[in-house]
Parts: sequence; structure tokens; C-alpha cells
Amino acid sequence: MRLRKIKNIEEKIKNYSDIIVFDAVSKKGKWNSQFKNENPIYLEIGMGKGKFLLEHARLNPNINYIGCELSDSVIYKAAEKAEKAKQEENITNLLMINNDACMLNDIFSSGEVSKVYLNFSDPWPKSRHAKRRLTADTFLNVYKNLLGVDGIIEMKTDNRKLFEFSLMKFNEFGWIFEELSLDLHSDKEDIITTEYEDRFVNLGQQIYYVKVRIK
Amino acid sequence: MRLRKIKNIEEKIKNYSDIIVFDAVSKKGKWNSQFKNENPIYLEIGMGKGKFLLEHARLNPNINYIGCELSDSVIYKAAEKAEKAKQEENITNLLMINNDACMLNDIFSSGEVSKVYLNFSDPWPKSRHAKRRLTADTFLNVYKNLLGVDGIIEMKTDNRKLFEFSLMKFNEFGWIFEELSLDLHSDKEDIITTEYEDRFVNLGQQIYYVKVRIK
Repeated sequence: MRLRKIKNIEEKIKNYSDIIVFDAVSKKGKWNSQFKNENPIYLEIGMGKGKFLLEHARLNPNINYIGCELSDSVIYKAAEKAEKAKQEENITNLLMINNDACMLNDIFSSGEVSKVYLNFSDPWPKSRHAKRRLTADTFLNVYKNLLGVDGIIEMKTDNRKLFEFSLMKFNEFGWIFEELSLDLHSDKEDIITTEYEDRFVNLGQQIYYVKVRIK
Repeated sequence: MRLRKIKNIEEKIKNYSDIIVFDAVSKKGKWNSQFKNENPIYLEIGMGKGKFLLEHARLNPNINYIGCELSDSVIYKAAEKAEKAKQEENITNLLMINNDACMLNDIFSSGEVSKVYLNFSDPWPKSRHAKRRLTADTFLNVYKNLLGVDGIIEMKTDNRKLFEFSLMKFNEFGWIFEELSLDLHSDKEDIITTEYEDRFVNLGQQIYYVKVRIK
């Protein structure tokens, strides 16, 4: 998700410290206390500007959502929206973290997360960058730890090569495909979309989707 | 593969009894003697008019090919071509069987086949017909027996729903995706095609492909 750099962004995002948890590592194993309830935690990795997660938070008050986004400028935009929703609609089940995905094992204890969303992740098309894809071995091992057995990963992408790579990786890990669509928007209605997805669907591009259960 | 019915077809196909093995059940465990060599056996289920298998047979004299096709009229067309190739080019590594796929365990002993090809199989789109799809549980169990561990299945189809179903089934069985393409003809060149495939590719339709290893 590209975005013009915002001036003094490091200062500005601090205004949203009730939405963005800056000391995420210190919350490891204590996220339910942070939300002040025992509801399941769903994590979006590479949240972007937060439309997808905010809509989910609105519709499902009994789920806690955490959006992980590394870019300061992008998480700022997402936090702006979430703060507004908190003030105006009393949405309190959405928090954000400003970390790299490879750090997630330092932020969540084993089994602390029930679902991971991977939406339109960077495809890293060159094979020498394959390790950076969010469905490379290293990351799948991270998710396995976060989620534990029977944890769910839901992935959407418009990138064919990333999707092929990801299906092969999930399969190699022995994880179960619970749902699979090679053209999500012709199979389902009322889909909660990301900003990115809206653009692609409007261009008539197909969206790939898989729901995987860890075994 | 639809084809006009040929008159007296039951009589006519008997002319090709050196290509079509009518007493296939009696060859169980003895297919290598039938080919008079110890080369691996590759089986296409639903061979159609035989273009794909004949091209393979031509290019790979050290592989034995068997085409399985239930329709008399269709296998007749395929045998006609194979007979011509036998006379004119001395192609002797291609045989055919005129049986239903559910009978394959009566025709081959366990591990007798090294590879199964499923090309443009009938999608049976209605869910009440799902059991008839060539990647339904019953058939996967048949292939598992024919092929044994490390046996290979290569599947091509233009049908999205059949492909999604098949990926989910292979995954459920714990079999490994060795190769996967959601648009085979943009990924590879020099593909040996079926008659059906040529038509679809000319219409600009994408072809799905997966190569699976049995575990």
C-alpha cells in the first residue's frame, strides 16, 4: 500500500496511542486483558489503511481485532479512521500494532490468536525475494505458533503467482483447505473488501481466496 | 468429448484389437509383459480422441502409455490414429482400454502404474453428481492403489469449479503439490495439448494445471 510520506509522522502517530499499541511486546500473553474481555483475537497482517478490519470490528463486536502494519504513514491513516469510529460509534474491539511480521512471536504467545488474515500481501515476484512473501516457510512457522492447531488463516490476493506459491506452501505444511475460490467475487456476495480489493474488482480482475486450517 | 455415434461401432472397434486391449482385466499385474519391456506405465483416464497420449508416445519411446476411454465411438477414433502411427512410425508404446474408471483396480495391480493423467475430465457441476467427478474420494482411493506412494497425478482442466474441488480433495488426502499453475499456457511453452485444450486456448481461456505426488 503506497502512500505519500506524512511530515513528522513519528510524532503524529503518537496521538493515537489508545489505538496503536506501541509497546506490543510487553502485551505478549496479555492481549485479552488489553481488550478487557475473553473474546477471540483475529489478526490482520499488513492491514493497510484499515477498511477491512474496521468493517469486521463493526459487524462482530464479540471478536477482538488487531491490525499489524509496518508503515508509519499507513497505520496513521488506519488509526485516524479507527479513532473516529471509537468516538462516534463506540468501536472498542480494534487495536493496531506497528511491527514487522517476523516479530509476531515476540508479541503473541502460542495460541493467543484465533485467526490470521493475509489480504493482498506484497507478492515479491522475484524468486530471490521469495523468503519475504508472507506465506514463506518462516512466516508459516510463525503463524503456526500464534494460532496453534485448528487456527485459521484466510488469504485473499489478486496475484496469481503469490497465490500458487501460497497454496503449495500451505499444502506442503499439511494444512487443510477449508474453502477455496479462484474467483471470490463471482462465488460470494457481501464480501468485506480492502481498499485495494475494491480497485481490482472494479477493473474486473478476479480475486483468489483460500481459508486454511492448521493441522 | 461428444462425437456422433458411429454405426456398428461394436463390430468396428474389434478391428483394432492390437491397440485396444478388450480383456484388460486378464492383464492385471502383467502389463509390462503386454508391452514386452520393463518401462514405466503412464495412464490417461478419459483419453478422448488420443492426441495427447499419441504425442507423448511419439516423444517418449521409453514410457508405456495406456489410454482409458469408456465411449466406443471415441476410443475408435483414438485407435484409428494409433494404428496409423503404429504402421507408419512404428509407435508400439501405446495401448488402450475401453473401461470405466471405477474398474481400474481390477485392471492394474497395486503400483503397476507410475503416472495418471486427468485431462479435461467431466466437471459434473451439480453437487449431487460430485461423486462422479474423477477426483472424488472413490477415485482418489483407486489412484492411490494403482500408483502407490510417490506416484504422480497430472491434471489439466479449464473448469474452475472442478479444479477448486480437486485441489481441495488432493489436499485433504495429504498429497503434495509438486507444480501448480492457474494459467498453464502463460507459464509454459511446448505443451502437449488435447483436442479439447486447443479449442479452449484458442478462445483465450486459461487452463488450470496441477502435478500431485501421492504420500
